[in-house]
Parts: sequence; C-alpha cells; structure tokens
Amino acid sequence: MRKGVIRPGHVQIRVLDIEPAVRHYTELVGLIETHRDKPGRVYLKGWTESELFSVVLREAEEAGMDFQGFKVRDDATLTALGRDLRAWGVEVEEIASGELEHCGRRLRFVTPTGHNIELYAEKTYTGPWGISRAEPEAWPRGLRGMRAQRFDHCQLHGLDIEATRDLLSEVLGFYVTEHVLSDDGKNLAIFMSLAMKAHDIALILDDRHGKFHHAAFYLDNWESLLRAGDLLSMTNTSLDTAPTRHGITRGQTTYFFDPSGNRNEAFTGGSTHYPDQQPYVWNEASLGKAIFYHHRKLSDMFMEVLT
Amino acid sequence: MRKGVIRPGHVQIRVLDIEPAVRHYTELVGLIETHRDKPGRVYLKGWTESELFSVVLREAEEAGMDFQGFKVRDDATLTALGRDLRAWGVEVEEIASGELEHCGRRLRFVTPTGHNIELYAEKTYTGPWGISRAEPEAWPRGLRGMRAQRFDHCQLHGLDIEATRDLLSEVLGFYVTEHVLSDDGKNLAIFMSLAMKAHDIALILDDRHGKFHHAAFYLDNWESLLRAGDLLSMTNTSLDTAPTRHGITRGQTTYFFDPSGNRNEAFTGGSTHYPDQQPYVWNEASLGKAIFYHHRKLSDMFMEVLT
Amino acid sequence: MRKGVIRPGHVQIRVLDIEPAVRHYTELVGLIETHRDKPGRVYLKGWTESELFSVVLREAEEAGMDFQGFKVRDDATLTALGRDLRAWGVEVEEIASGELEHCGRRLRFVTPTGHNIELYAEKTYTGPWGISRAEPEAWPRGLRGMRAQRFDHCQLHGLDIEATRDLLSEVLGFYVTEHVLSDDGKNLAIFMSLAMKAHDIALILDDRHGKFHHAAFYLDNWESLLRAGDLLSMTNTSLDTAPTRHGITRGQTTYFFDPSGNRNEAFTGGSTHYPDQQPYVWNEASLGKAIFYHHRKLSDMFMEVLT
Amino acid sequence: MRKGVIRPGHVQIRVLDIEPAVRHYTELVGLIETHRDKPGRVYLKGWTESELFSVVLREAEEAGMDFQGFKVRDDATLTALGRDLRAWGVEVEEIASGELEHCGRRLRFVTPTGHNIELYAEKTYTGPWGISRAEPEAWPRGLRGMRAQRFDHCQLHGLDIEATRDLLSEVLGFYVTEHVLSDDGKNLAIFMSLAMKAHDIALILDDRHGKFHHAAFYLDNWESLLRAGDLLSMTNTSLDTAPTRHGITRGQTTYFFDPSGNRNEAFTGGSTHYPDQQPYVWNEASLGKAIFYHHRKLSDMFMEVLT
Repeated sequence: MRKGVIRPGHVQIRVLDIEPAVRHYTELVGLIETHRDKPGRVYLKGWTESELFSVVLREAEEAGMDFQGFKVRDDATLTALGRDLRAWGVEVEEIASGELEHCGRRLRFVTPTGHNIELYAEKTYTGPWGISRAEPEAWPRGLRGMRAQRFDHCQLHGLDIEATRDLLSEVLGFYVTEHVLSDDGKNLAIFMSLAMKAHDIALILDDRHGKFHHAAFYLDNWESLLRAGDLLSMTNTSLDTAPTRHGITRGQTTYFFDPSGNRNEAFTGGSTHYPDQQPYVWNEASLGKAIFYHHRKLSDMFMEVLT
Repeated sequence: MRKGVIRPGHVQIRVLDIEPAVRHYTELVGLIETHRDKPGRVYLKGWTESELFSVVLREAEEAGMDFQGFKVRDDATLTALGRDLRAWGVEVEEIASGELEHCGRRLRFVTPTGHNIELYAEKTYTGPWGISRAEPEAWPRGLRGMRAQRFDHCQLHGLDIEATRDLLSEVLGFYVTEHVLSDDGKNLAIFMSLAMKAHDIALILDDRHGKFHHAAFYLDNWESLLRAGDLLSMTNTSLDTAPTRHGITRGQTTYFFDPSGNRNEAFTGGSTHYPDQQPYVWNEASLGKAIFYHHRKLSDMFMEVLT
Repeated sequence: MRKGVIRPGHVQIRVLDIEPAVRHYTELVGLIETHRDKPGRVYLKGWTESELFSVVLREAEEAGMDFQGFKVRDDATLTALGRDLRAWGVEVEEIASGELEHCGRRLRFVTPTGHNIELYAEKTYTGPWGISRAEPEAWPRGLRGMRAQRFDHCQLHGLDIEATRDLLSEVLGFYVTEHVLSDDGKNLAIFMSLAMKAHDIALILDDRHGKFHHAAFYLDNWESLLRAGDLLSMTNTSLDTAPTRHGITRGQTTYFFDPSGNRNEAFTGGSTHYPDQQPYVWNEASLGKAIFYHHRKLSDMFMEVLT
Repeated sequence: MRKGVIRPGHVQIRVLDIEPAVRHYTELVGLIETHRDKPGRVYLKGWTESELFSVVLREAEEAGMDFQGFKVRDDATLTALGRDLRAWGVEVEEIASGELEHCGRRLRFVTPTGHNIELYAEKTYTGPWGISRAEPEAWPRGLRGMRAQRFDHCQLHGLDIEATRDLLSEVLGFYVTEHVLSDDGKNLAIFMSLAMKAHDIALILDDRHGKFHHAAFYLDNWESLLRAGDLLSMTNTSLDTAPTRHGITRGQTTYFFDPSGNRNEAFTGGSTHYPDQQPYVWNEASLGKAIFYHHRKLSDMFMEVLT
C-alpha cells in the first residue's frame, strides 16, 4: 500500500449469456447479486467485501476480461497516481463516475502485457454482506455454494511482464512475492502483492498477448475447497483442476469454467507475504511443481487462455 | 501501512527463569531459538517470519512485557516518524543499534496507556525458517509443538486508550478495526491494524495502567488450535481459556500461561480487514460474546494482567 | 454385533412444547422431519441414517427420555434376545408393531439403572436422506444448521451401572470401551459399544436413579463443531459446554439445551474401538480431564440431569 | 462381524529392497516398526492398532502382496470358520503359530479371484502405540510423516469377483456396501465390509487374475491428506493420484508408490455403512466419477496392477 493503492476492487468479465452466468457466480461460486444497470450488466460481491460490488458480468459475443480495477486511498491519491502513470509513459483514460453504477471516476491504462487496469477511489459503501457493523455474527446465514469471501486476484498473460512489473511496482506500489525464471534469467511468471497477500495479481509471459487466464475467488479453508470440488461434480460443472495445493503461494486451489468458458479459481490459504520479505524464486524446470505442488505437472487444458 | 509502519516486529517478555521459559516457547509454542546475547537474553522467531527474531526473553524478578516493536519501511521513514512522534508530544528515546543483537537503532516512546512501543527499520534478514528462498516447500520439517507461524500481536491495558488510538492512527498509520463502547459512548477496548489483519494491537481501558495482558502467536488453522489445546493438557500447562471462537476478529483462540505467568494466546483465522472498511462496534453489554463468542461470558482468570 | 444387535436405532424425547422443539431439532441440529403420527408425535432422522426415523419427539408435562431403541439383525434374533433377556432376569414388554409408526414390534425392558431400553428388527427402510442409492453424491444439498449425520448415543444416570453393563454385555453383545474407577475400584462411568464406535451408550453411576443426561448427534468433523458453536450463539441457544475435546473417546463435543431443557450433544470424531481392544481406564481423580480434556474440570451445569 | 470375523488384521507385502521400504513405511507413511524376524521380515503397525503388528514387509524378487489376514473372535470361531470354508469348497491350509512371529495359527485359502486370504484368532496384544491404557492422551507424541492410524484395506483384482463376494459373505460375514455394474448387469467392482466401514476389502473384475492394486492406510482427516500430498512432493515420492475425493465410499484419498512399486493409498473419511443398509450401485458409464469424484476420469497409471 506504499503508493496508496489498497487492494483489488473489481473485475468485469464478459459472458455469452447473462442468466446462466449469474446462476453460476451466485449459486455455485456463492457471490451475491447486488444490482443490475441499464445496459444489463449484473453486479456481484463476495460476502466479506465492504463495498457494494466487486464483480461485473457483461453479456458479449466473446468471453474474457474487460478490465480489473484497484481501490486507492482517496481522490487526491487517484489524481496523483494518474499523473504518475502518465509520467511513467502510459496513456490514462478517465472514465466518468457512474459508468459503473455506484462507482466513482476511474483512471484506466493498458499494461505492457496488454490488459486494461484501472484505479478508483470511491464506490458505494455497504460493509460486509449479511452481518451487521454492530456486533457482527461470525458469518452470515444464507450463503450459497462455495460461499466465496471475495474476488481475490486475476492471472493475466502477455508479452512484457517485466515492464508491467516495473510499472506496478514503481508507480502503484505493488511488490514481487514470487517469480519464475527461465534458464537464461528471464521472468516467465511474476506474482505481485499490495499488502500481505501471497499475490494480488499474477503475470505470465505468453506470446498470446493481452490474454486472460482466470479470476480467483477466496474461500474459507481447505475444507471449503473439498466442498467446492464436490459442488463442481454435483452440478456437472466443467473442471480444469481438482482441489489441490499450489507451490507458488503455498495456497490451495481448484480451477473450473463458467458457462461461457471463463476460467475461475477457488483459492484459499496462501502464505502471508509482507513487503519487506524477499521474493521466492522458482526455476523453469520446476514449473509443474511451482503451479501444482502435488501433481508436479501442468495439463494442456490449464495452458489455455481467453482474450 | 499508510505511514510506512509495516507490521509487528518483536516483543520482549520478562521471565522468572530462562530455561523453562525457552522450553515453553520452543517445545510447546513451537518458536525457534535463533541466538542468545551476552546479557543472557534468548531470541526466538516463528517459522514464517523473514527476519532473524521476533521474540526476546529476558530473565527478571517479575514477569511482564518490556516493550513491543514495529518494523518500518526504511531508515528515512524511521527518522521521519521519530520527528512526527515528538511533534505529537511524546518523548522519543533512541536505542542504539546492537542493543538488541542483530537489530538496528530503535526509537522508543511511551504510549498514553503506559506501554513501551518502539520502531525499527533494520534487522538481520534470514527469510522464513526451514524453507528455501528458491523453490520453497509448503512448510518446513521439524517444527515442534503448536508450530506457531509468527508473533502476531499484544493486548495492552491502561488508561487513555483513546489518546493511544489517536497517536497510533495519526502518527503511525494504524486504523481501528473493532471497538467496544460503554453505554455513555466511551471506548472500553480498541483493536487496530496496519494492513489487512483483524488486529495488530489491542488496547483495553483499565485502571491498572501500563499492564500487559497477553502476547499472541499465530497458528495455521482451527485444526491446529485443537492440537494446541491437546498439547496444553498433555504437558499439564496452565490453561486460561480452551480453544474457542472470538466475537471480535471472528478468529479462533486459546489462552494459557508460560511458566512465569505471562499469558500467551494461540490465535488463528480472524477476518480480513482493509483500511477502507469501517470498524465493527460492540456494546459493553455484549462484552462476553465479543470476547468469547461461544461462552458469551468472561472468567475472572481472563481479567488478570501483568506489568 | 456379537449377539445380533447392530446399532442405536431411535430415542424418544419428551418436550414441553412440540413446535419450538421441532424447530430446534430441524433448523438448528439439522435433523429432517419425516412424519407425524395421530398422537402428535414428530419423527426425525439424521441424513445418513438408512431407516425412516431415529428421533421421536413427544409433547409432555416434563422433559426427559422415554426410551432408547436398538436395531437387531432380524425378527428371529429379536425373539431369541427377548428369551435371553428374560432368562437373565428382566421383565420384557412387547410393544405392538405400529405403536411407533413405521416401526415393527419392539421388546422393551428396564435396565438396572432404571432406563427403558428396547429392541426392534423392522422399520421402514428409506436409505440416507437426499442422496440416491444409485450413484450417490458426496452429500445432500439442503441440509440445515449443524447438519447432524445421525442420532449417535445417549448418556444415562442411575444406580447399578455394573449390573447394566453385565446385562448389555452378556445378553446384547455390547463391550466396554472405557470406564472410570473410584479409588476403591467401583465403576463410576462405563462406556459401551456394539461395533467400532468409541461408545454407543454411556452409563454414569448416580443416586439420581433412572435419569437422562443427554442424547448425542454426530457431526462431520471439528470444523463442523466450530460452526455448531457459532450457530448456538447466533440463535441465542442455551449453552452448556462450548466446542472442545473429550478425554474419554478422544472425540469432540459441544453440549447445549433444547427449548424444553433436554441436553443435546453435538459429537464428532472419537477413536475407533474394536471389540478385541481392551478398555481404557480412568481414575476418579482425573474425571475432569476424562470428560473435558482441555478444561480438565466439570461445571455444575454439566452435572444436572433430567428424568 | 456376523460370523465372528472382526476386522482386517494384517497384510504381507513383498519389497525389492528391505531398508528403503522400511524407511518409506515408517518415515513417510508413519507406521511404527515393531520387530524383525529371523528370515528378515520387518513388522509394522499404525499407532491406533491394538495388536503388535499389521503390516509385514518381505524382501523378494518381485513386488506385490503375499496375503491379507483377518482377525476372528477366538480360536473356536477360527476352527468353525475353517470347517465352513472347506464346506463351501475352498482348500484351507493351516499355517503354524509363530510362522508370523507373535501371531497364532492361521487358516489360509485362495479366493476365486486368486488371492491368499487368511484368518487368525491370536496375536500379541499391546494396545495402541504411544498412549497408555490408563488415561490415554488424545494422541501420541513422536508420530512421523502421514501418521497413519492403521492398515485399512486392500484392493484385489481378478476373475470371479462374484464368487469371491459370495464366499466372503456367506462364510465370513462380510456384506456389500457398494458395487459397480456393467450395462449387462455384471459386477465390475464390489466393496465389502465387516462392521461399519465403507469397505474392508475391494474386489475388481480383471483378466489380470490374482493381482494386487493397493494397500490402504487410514489417516486422520482431509487436513492430513493435504499434508500427505505435501510430504509426497517434499520427499519426491512417485505419485499416482493427488489428494482428492472418492465417489465410492465418499472418502478422501491419495495414491502413491513405495520404492518397490507397490501402490499405497492414504485414505480417510468414508461413509459409515451398517450391515442393514442396502449397497450403493454405480453404473459402468460413471466409473470415473465413482472412483475419482472430482476428476470424473481414471488415468492409465491408476489401472496398473501388481502380482
């Protein structure tokens, strides 16, 4: 949070058919639908998130990610970061307050990996869903499916991940928690964080520029991941990778697809990583173990990406 | 981390007899002894902590806490914070590099609650214990007892917790995550954080000024707390409160005593609380449930404190 | 199962007001209501149980247990056991098929501890609730509250627990898994099993003859017990003992009260204990640790019993 | 236990090199070595098992299973079962007391699937390892690796699994808990139990007659399986299937290989299945989901067997 960027704030995902998508993210993933806007976008959140929404679904011809947004401390910080971004050399587009309903103005730029990232300082505040600000119960009744706590992070593929790392680090205050190096010392994957998490964003070097690998949702614990895997089978949901452990982050994970083919991750655990801790380093030869600590290999399916 | 204060860094605890204390904190709590200094102090750490030590045991006539230290970003930040502390109106004492072996210079002040708090920017860096920086395994072999991950926080009792809150907030960048109000609106307890944790420090209003309630150590999960409770019985360790849930923080906890009578907490879970989330509020009448969510009452033993 | 007695089959509990009781056992404990009979009794089951019902609630002036029933292999075995019971010296009452709706004839006797125990061979078969016999899913959707798997056992207080032990052992094929001895070698508590469980019945020596301490319901695991404790607080249910570990059985437990004052246990874990394993022995002086392994003491509330 | 057969008692496994095998089963699986005999066989047990040993390793030219043994109630029962086996039409070989050191006489026969199964009534009694019969602690200190509780079951491949089912059922008192049917109604897999477990033996129809698929060891819970998977990676042990859920049994599992190529399963959970519950049925078309509930498919590696 060195530069006033606090945390991941939202992601807009394109889906081919809105109603099956909403059912997937609410009944299976366990997000809560909060509202819909005139253009038909559907807004959702995980129950622990304190703002009104964090996931936006937009019906489109092609699946994929439109943009990911990060929350900054306040409007003055937003202005300053816009200036710093331009100084660093990226074009910054200002999107007017209200374009995302209940969200203030956003500053958007394209990363060297070809992805739309944006910053915002204001969004309607609600507090966590289903528990009171006064004397909150331990958890809300009525959660469904995987009971996702929050939108956690995205994994993005493209060229120039080192330049993107520099931009996120120097201008926005991210720091590297783990990375994977090729035999000749080139970064193949970079994981970055803002505060204490094992990662708030994952960057993968890939000729397929500007691509989207997955959006992740945080579950309670390893027990929740077992139930998540069970729910995937009960609902006959398309599975990528059954519940298992990551090497990188040391968290636990399962990957699956929404009805439009967007990959989702249900993620939990993950080591605490403060900004003053040096990053972990993995070698290309161990990439399988780095990603799937138990299997120690990658599947063809896992290597696919979307726009 | 708004002001460059990153996290809790260390605590120095007084013990009546050093060797039984070392056995308690290593064999039972699961900290790792890293070194001893000339005056006979013993330095320890939890395995996930990236600096050389976080807990210091000092043999003394009376149990209690000598001081708690917080890590700041760099030496320039340390200097600036020293200046800001003085401007706020507290005296700042500089303790020379090396007084704690392997730790740089520290700036110490007394909070309005009567506790010694200090800041430091440099300490010997080691990375987490027992796993490599290159391709780390999921966890280290050879951990003992409760396998504590880290020193997590302290709970401090005294007068003027609201002034301490203002000092920690305005000068050091802490924010309030939860607090307990009396019927006439006075703060009885204030929980504050630096980054994402449910608390990095707990302040309790108490006529017994400048007192120490407990130091907490972070365990893996609720399963680990069950085993912690088992270990307390197997080792016939003095128990304060068996494993259960907190209302405040929604974490899980057990309290017990070291051989000198210092209260320890083994803590895990706890809600994620970002700086832009409003604090939870509890009323005095619900204090029992706020502290022990299942029992809904406090014991006499739990109300005792040390210097 | 040496004598053809397979497992606990049902318990009939008296409640002061039927509808609040049904809400308690369905919404909180998570049993499923299966049917009601003409006299107004309500029949329930845990989802894993293969027969139609296992818990019967009867509205009455006074709370307590009417009887506990055990399932035997077949009708010929039932007849033989009736003969053996009479030969052992207890009176056996035959209760006609249909008195409990959907249950065949039952043979009832009074134990030397003053409790009504009965045997039956036939009850309407349904299979577990909410999953199919063909290709069952891992668990059913739609479970509520604590999601109790099954009625597990009862704890009964009275005189002559050693005679009851002999009867259950010699005639019905129970075996002792654990017991507590007084300093002069008298049994203060006896835990008995039929197959592999840590206990199917618990007998406590008590001047308060023919009394009922609790009926227990089996939960999934230690994580479920945390959630059970949470639900007790959320619903403001009267708590006896918060989630913790037993010494005897090594299982995990929480005790609470239904709206009529009947004590319930939510229980999980517990060591596997085969008939060829010798019983564990506890001494009177360790009774606290035997019952509550972490607290190592008993509360006054826990010592209360009902008729 | 209808015929006096209580539980799985032991398995003798052939290994190519005894010392690496012992290290595998003790340091990784967590069995305890109890003794060695003159011919050099090594005897082991899981900590909860009440007899001296349950696993025997024999150095040989070829890996695989020599025999599996079941414990019966007493010597009279053993004699009666020998008579019943012969009456059913299998040859029964008597192996003298002491051939397995500390084990009484055994009656061995070959199942229609081509496997050596034996019965015994006496083996040196020790009680569980590391805890006392008097006031046992919740678990023993000093367990290693996966901390396996017990040898749990074997999976055996061969022709005539239906005849083997009939033999095990009619003579030895096993009952079917789950089975898989081909489209024309033939049994492809049969799972059988003696008391309450989801299975004590698994039979798979296979042209590869008299083959051994795996021996299973019971772990504490799903959390233990995560750690088991971690240990497999840390020790670079050959993995078959990473920790996941079974459809059949609804238990959790991971498969891996000992240094000689014998497949081991670490298993936990699994539904409780009493003898009066009807078996679950799976169709051939769902075999993938039946075995691996999350992946819903079988790997080539998993289909391999040993003699």
